[in-house]
Amino acid sequence: MPTTRRQFLQSVGVAGGAGVMYSTMGALGLAPTAAAAPYTPPRSGDFTLAGRSAARVVVLGAGIAGLTTAYELQKAGYQVTVLEARDRPGGRNWTVRGGTRETDLKGETQHARFAEGQYLNAGPARIAQHMVTLDYCRELGVPVEVFTNVNADSYYFDEGTTPLSGTPVRHRTTKADTYGYVSELLARATDSGSLDGYLTGADKEALLSFLGGWGAIGRRVEGDPAASWKYTGTSRRGYEVLPGAGTQAGTPLGPPPSLSDVLQSNLGRNISFEFGFDQAMLMFQPVGGMDRIPYAFERAVDRRNIVYRAEVGGITNTPTGVDVTYTTRGRRRTVTADFCVCTIPPMVLKKIPTNFAPEVGTALAYAQAAPAGKIALQYDRRWWETDENIYGGITNTNMDIGTIWYPSSGYHGDRGTVVGYYNFGNNALAYGRLSHKERLSRALVQGQKVHGQKYARGIEASFSVSWENTRYSEGGWVSWPSRESAEYRRLLQPEGRTYFAGDHLSHYTSWMSGAIESARASVTALHQRALAG
Amino acid sequence: MPTTRRQFLQSVGVAGGAGVMYSTMGALGLAPTAAAAPYTPPRSGDFTLAGRSAARVVVLGAGIAGLTTAYELQKAGYQVTVLEARDRPGGRNWTVRGGTRETDLKGETQHARFAEGQYLNAGPARIAQHMVTLDYCRELGVPVEVFTNVNADSYYFDEGTTPLSGTPVRHRTTKADTYGYVSELLARATDSGSLDGYLTGADKEALLSFLGGWGAIGRRVEGDPAASWKYTGTSRRGYEVLPGAGTQAGTPLGPPPSLSDVLQSNLGRNISFEFGFDQAMLMFQPVGGMDRIPYAFERAVDRRNIVYRAEVGGITNTPTGVDVTYTTRGRRRTVTADFCVCTIPPMVLKKIPTNFAPEVGTALAYAQAAPAGKIALQYDRRWWETDENIYGGITNTNMDIGTIWYPSSGYHGDRGTVVGYYNFGNNALAYGRLSHKERLSRALVQGQKVHGQKYARGIEASFSVSWENTRYSEGGWVSWPSRESAEYRRLLQPEGRTYFAGDHLSHYTSWMSGAIESARASVTALHQRALAG
Repeated sequence: MPTTRRQFLQSVGVAGGAGVMYSTMGALGLAPTAAAAPYTPPRSGDFTLAGRSAARVVVLGAGIAGLTTAYELQKAGYQVTVLEARDRPGGRNWTVRGGTRETDLKGETQHARFAEGQYLNAGPARIAQHMVTLDYCRELGVPVEVFTNVNADSYYFDEGTTPLSGTPVRHRTTKADTYGYVSELLARATDSGSLDGYLTGADKEALLSFLGGWGAIGRRVEGDPAASWKYTGTSRRGYEVLPGAGTQAGTPLGPPPSLSDVLQSNLGRNISFEFGFDQAMLMFQPVGGMDRIPYAFERAVDRRNIVYRAEVGGITNTPTGVDVTYTTRGRRRTVTADFCVCTIPPMVLKKIPTNFAPEVGTALAYAQAAPAGKIALQYDRRWWETDENIYGGITNTNMDIGTIWYPSSGYHGDRGTVVGYYNFGNNALAYGRLSHKERLSRALVQGQKVHGQKYARGIEASFSVSWENTRYSEGGWVSWPSRESAEYRRLLQPEGRTYFAGDHLSHYTSWMSGAIESARASVTALHQRALAG
Repeated sequence: MPTTRRQFLQSVGVAGGAGVMYSTMGALGLAPTAAAAPYTPPRSGDFTLAGRSAARVVVLGAGIAGLTTAYELQKAGYQVTVLEARDRPGGRNWTVRGGTRETDLKGETQHARFAEGQYLNAGPARIAQHMVTLDYCRELGVPVEVFTNVNADSYYFDEGTTPLSGTPVRHRTTKADTYGYVSELLARATDSGSLDGYLTGADKEALLSFLGGWGAIGRRVEGDPAASWKYTGTSRRGYEVLPGAGTQAGTPLGPPPSLSDVLQSNLGRNISFEFGFDQAMLMFQPVGGMDRIPYAFERAVDRRNIVYRAEVGGITNTPTGVDVTYTTRGRRRTVTADFCVCTIPPMVLKKIPTNFAPEVGTALAYAQAAPAGKIALQYDRRWWETDENIYGGITNTNMDIGTIWYPSSGYHGDRGTVVGYYNFGNNALAYGRLSHKERLSRALVQGQKVHGQKYARGIEASFSVSWENTRYSEGGWVSWPSRESAEYRRLLQPEGRTYFAGDHLSHYTSWMSGAIESARASVTALHQRALAG
């Protein structure tokens, strides 16, 4: 994998005359599969070749970073023990199913009553194609399916006082109208000569040709600039009456709102979400729940190497190793290892007694917990499919629910589970302060504004998570004031024989790929040191 | 279903103050689920209530139109016999699997040797969310999954002499560069006052704000218009080095090609495909192959009511019914029924002896066969996933292969099947004239220009279809010179006791939904007549 992009470019270059003609390779748009320094997993023969015996490592946390660490180290024969405070693997990679019981830091207990096959991915929920996470799904045999991150038929919905406020508008309609008017305006400016300082005659012709098709606008009307290049609507917006049998040609929705109404509505601001390198479709999820990944790791690592319900009470670097004390089922124990890899979130770790240098404590305190929350609503029928033709995707709002997610699996089933909010920042804090019942009520009031009264009907089960109120996490992820800081960089270095890892120590914070990349970096550093002795 | 849109609008209107505020409902972007005249299926009590006995109907063709007809008529107790020339249901809805054997009209026989689970949807391959086809999948219990019609990580590739010719460019990169420069130009024109005749001051501010985010361009530089609103690239294009662990912030691909190079490349012309009402994501396919739909219909209709290998030799309207003669396994038979619904394609039907009025023959001859072809390539590894991070989607080219489709299922499997071309018009005719071996060779030469030498390696099986050369179809679909013509409209009327149906008699030609809608229209007309006696 590390060299495949290079191999690909070579193969293209060799494949006949057409090949790669553009001089700047960066213009290719060929997303690399490789990290800067290709990752080389530890190998079973490494210790033999080095004339040493495999080291013993204690890994703190069975989230994605901890599990990756254990899995990769075992490839070279390390004896790995993973201590995990929870009774399951995954950490924030947590799929809530029927039977899940959780007591939050405020003392409220929720008991999920989802039906068989219904679930909430309470933490990470999507994987981009370029992410190393998919490579682990392949390696560990976790089947994946499309995660429906973007859907032309889901809505944008804003409360407010603009002409389109209070109205759910399909993504496709906003896009058609926005692009139609952008085309109309740019075509007029181009054709009037306003941009002649930037465009050659040939460029102008190419641009006008592009805008005509892309914006679905009218043509130039000779001698009448105001009538030229007009956007008057398009079937891309949708149909009032669908095309059908016989003479039913279909009646496109229309006419579109005015240019001013479209601009003032500001709904177009939402469109660029789907261009994001991390968020652009196609995206993926494991079939059956995100926790299929940690459970596959658990099988690969061997469950006997993981101690669940092990709450770490202290970490002590010694001259020859690390002592970690933990409490499990009321008993205090200590594990001693040659090295430690600690993936406990900074917000939690900073409260655990250690003999780390003061700068480490300063660095841990520098990490800011990012609040985040979700609620899952299990309905007794899939009304978004049957009534609104929405098969997955996300509705974006300016309300404090943030978004509504329609499920990416179980299409046409008897029931389905919607994410009724996924929010962060102050919105998450606001919901986090509420009881589950209050969260549910608030989410339903807002969802009804988009979907009508049925949104509050037929709810069979619900479950909400507030990550900043979740024991052992205390945040959705870490927000760093700066990654250029001495504090952030301090945690990239080991403290004695203890290494740190987690998505917070990567440029992919809140993504599983960040946890994996960070774990690989720590594994590489630890392994080099272990081999060097 | 027919009234759900109305119900939805009512429910929104009732749901509190926000509700529907925009006066023009057409602006909502609420795609309807209903046809102009809601479809009411025949019911089991209809004949009882009318005091008549259920009529007997012979349906010609077990494609989607014929199967829908039989299925819907049976709901009211009609005795239906379906005559199908092939030995399978589905017609052009044809999933080629290992073991499929087909001899084309040129006399060449292909024997598909795909592995278990590998297949080609030789005909229809995608279903949009608004299409009635999905309702039948629900009703018939056919599981569906996402069809990956658009992928930011697949390519645009043009041969030619423009600066980007001969270079595969990711969709995401073309989009980022096109939108970046469109934003830059429009922001300049707006800010310079060139569009003041069309934009208020508030509109200008809203537009500039939108363009900044949507195009990922720079801000206004006071006093320096040429330095303002510049597009200089964005991580949306992709990364040269991915974001990763520790200090690896990632290196975005760059710099982008010049404005002129982007415009002259004309790659942006491809973008609007994904806005199409029929083509916008999300789209769907049955799990396991498109033919799961006809086989589900076959079960619902009862296979004993379908006569396979029944080649129709004549259709005769009589004063009291219809006589259809057919040949099956060398024997000539006649079936007599009260009514006939004929779904045989015009190109085939026009050669079958009938006692239809001359205008019907004229109408059938008016239908033009649209050529279309596909080739499937089964590879021994999924190099598009492992080497290029492409998990489904379509690469668009200006070569005569048209497009390359990566599979929408079986992710991370040992092998996978790519559609090496899907083309129509003259490109399809050109491939149709070739032998399968020649088609394969030509497709591989072109595919290598996009993907390099590996494209020609590891091919375990292949199969091509040329619809104009396929017996019983003789075309991919029908192209009408005009649907306003007397000829088209003639076929919407029954000829004696024979009704016509098929996607060609709808405004959704080439889509299964057109076949279904047309069948429903004929069922409705026939049923009203049967009840009226």
